[in-house]
Amino acid sequence: MRRIVRNGGNHLITTYHSLNPPTITELSEDPSPLEFMRHVSLNRPFIIRNGARDWKALQRWNANYLCTVMEGQTVNVATTPLGNADSVIHLPSSPSSPRGKDEKAIFVKPHETTSPFTTALQQIQAQELHPETHSSSPTHYLQTQNDNLRNEYTSLFTDVPQSIPFARIALNQDPDAINFWLGNSSSTTALHKDNYENIYVQVTGKKHFVLLPPVEAACVNEKAVLAATYTPRPTTTTSDSSGTGVTTLDPDLRTTHLVIRVDDPNQYIPFATWDPDTPSHNPTPYSHLSRPLRVTLNEGDMLYLPALWYHKVSQSCSDEGICCAVNYWYDVDFAGGFWSMANFVRGREGGTERRRRNDKRRKMER
Amino acid sequence: MRRIVRNGGNHLITTYHSLNPPTITELSEDPSPLEFMRHVSLNRPFIIRNGARDWKALQRWNANYLCTVMEGQTVNVATTPLGNADSVIHLPSSPSSPRGKDEKAIFVKPHETTSPFTTALQQIQAQELHPETHSSSPTHYLQTQNDNLRNEYTSLFTDVPQSIPFARIALNQDPDAINFWLGNSSSTTALHKDNYENIYVQVTGKKHFVLLPPVEAACVNEKAVLAATYTPRPTTTTSDSSGTGVTTLDPDLRTTHLVIRVDDPNQYIPFATWDPDTPSHNPTPYSHLSRPLRVTLNEGDMLYLPALWYHKVSQSCSDEGICCAVNYWYDVDFAGGFWSMANFVRGREGGTERRRRNDKRRKMER
Ligand SMILES: O=C(O)CCC(=O)C(=O)O
Ligand SMILES: O=C(O)CCC(=O)C(=O)O
Repeated sequence: MRRIVRNGGNHLITTYHSLNPPTITELSEDPSPLEFMRHVSLNRPFIIRNGARDWKALQRWNANYLCTVMEGQTVNVATTPLGNADSVIHLPSSPSSPRGKDEKAIFVKPHETTSPFTTALQQIQAQELHPETHSSSPTHYLQTQNDNLRNEYTSLFTDVPQSIPFARIALNQDPDAINFWLGNSSSTTALHKDNYENIYVQVTGKKHFVLLPPVEAACVNEKAVLAATYTPRPTTTTSDSSGTGVTTLDPDLRTTHLVIRVDDPNQYIPFATWDPDTPSHNPTPYSHLSRPLRVTLNEGDMLYLPALWYHKVSQSCSDEGICCAVNYWYDVDFAGGFWSMANFVRGREGGTERRRRNDKRRKMER
Repeated sequence: MRRIVRNGGNHLITTYHSLNPPTITELSEDPSPLEFMRHVSLNRPFIIRNGARDWKALQRWNANYLCTVMEGQTVNVATTPLGNADSVIHLPSSPSSPRGKDEKAIFVKPHETTSPFTTALQQIQAQELHPETHSSSPTHYLQTQNDNLRNEYTSLFTDVPQSIPFARIALNQDPDAINFWLGNSSSTTALHKDNYENIYVQVTGKKHFVLLPPVEAACVNEKAVLAATYTPRPTTTTSDSSGTGVTTLDPDLRTTHLVIRVDDPNQYIPFATWDPDTPSHNPTPYSHLSRPLRVTLNEGDMLYLPALWYHKVSQSCSDEGICCAVNYWYDVDFAGGFWSMANFVRGREGGTERRRRNDKRRKMER
């Protein structure tokens, strides 16, 4: 199926680019619901510079305020050695291949733990502001992606609108999830796509988006990758044969006290293995046709990220060493022709692999 | 390319149908521009029963009124032996194959002539109302499809709106063409698709639409078919070797005085060769997956026929022996992902084959 679809993908991608601008549309103010619907219909992103300027969050959210409001509350924390939550890493395929030439891809999820919000915030800041003393610390990212702003961060929810008016009216629905994201420049979200229409608002710091349209599916080298999870290293040294079920796959990560444990039972996750920022690694014959859109969201900027667009997201911090954002996920309409065709272009069999994470809300299409 | 795309098309088509209703949406009143845009975005048709009830044309248009208003005017007439303008016919491939088993497809265009409007109208009525005396008459169809309602039928244009308000506002454009259609039940428009968002309004008689979504491209058995035109039979009998350039291909059509002349220079037109009404002829391995939507427009009904949908159209007459309709073509937006993907699904290389007929307005995608 994959091979089949990739034939002819060449023309699909070049046709698409010949018919669409190479830059992201910038709007100077909120679109009307109808104007927004035109963008949804075209499945094309736009950015509204300073579109969230009037949000209370823009005035209020700084480290001190967040700590005060979230005082005494425990939150979920995604912890990784390298800031690589939900990403593919390439490992030497076997101990007998010491040169590491024969790489094997693993999809690794973060270690999920809980901690007082203030502790997590301080760890995020400390890693950013004092890198010298935190070189071996793991990276923390508050990013549960499970409607957390209406749940664990509900005390902050009054500082943002309950929905984005133009999107609510156009799409005729309330957001399925509203997410709070707090991290630092050590975290990067790997290239993936979601079954959501996404309105993303930067509050503190900057986010750097790399965006690829759904027609570029053949560029991203999606593969079924073995799923694993970062896990604290057991206190006693274990080996593969110790019977604990813990498999230490990457000795280089030991300083972080997190090891990679392959999920049991084994599971393979379809995930992009090509990264537009390192285009010579793992390309497909189509990757060179990719024309990534790059856009940086500054404080107050609002991005419409259409459903099924691949996105990779990295971050820069405010002076306080934090990067904080909020986003609204609206359900994509699976009816009509777009979703079916995008799935077909991707070489998939009808979307059965749609995954949910953490809770029912996550519909990440890897 | 074709073969490649058809693999996997199975899943595309069944996925599409699992996500979309098997019937056409019926609206009880005009949609708002935003509601209309949602349908455009989904590329799904709807019908508004009696949506044109207030149009002057609905009250006024009958044979007598049309003749009065069009008095003295000459119009273009599409003439065919069997009511088959712009359609594929299958011919015995060679004289040495008398059983006719080895068929060859030809795309045949109507003989285009001009005549006083009243004469054409009377011929159309006479064929419908007195079939016994018109069994060997050719079929006439007033259907220039070149914005004729703002040109040769401009005296009738005041009886219809200049644009469809919800479509004009949603699509942010005026119609590229407004067409007047006048024929009888002998004419059928063969399955094809257009690069237009189409608002079609029935004024007199009924139209019967068979509709297939763009994802069913693999069902319609599109082939490059040799183009030809119906031409009056020369007064002297000619043969293929007479040097006149006239090739008489189908002896059965002689009674109509029209013969098929292959276009010079030869041209091949991509056209659907499968007809959902005769599904056992020329099927592809995907044709059985087709789920045609069938809808009859009665007087006053308005249909939204989304861009790139395959449609076959037949007609029933009013008591006066005429079938009359008006439609508005709005340019499709080639940007975004839909058009590129639909073209890819169809197995086409980027739409270069988009054809225009009669004048610049026709963008029929065969
Ligand atoms: O902000 C991030 O790190 C990732 C955002 C994202 O993937 C999303 O909003 O879907
Ligand atoms: O009314 C007909 O005969 C055909 C209509 C059609 O093909 C169209 O409106 O595009």
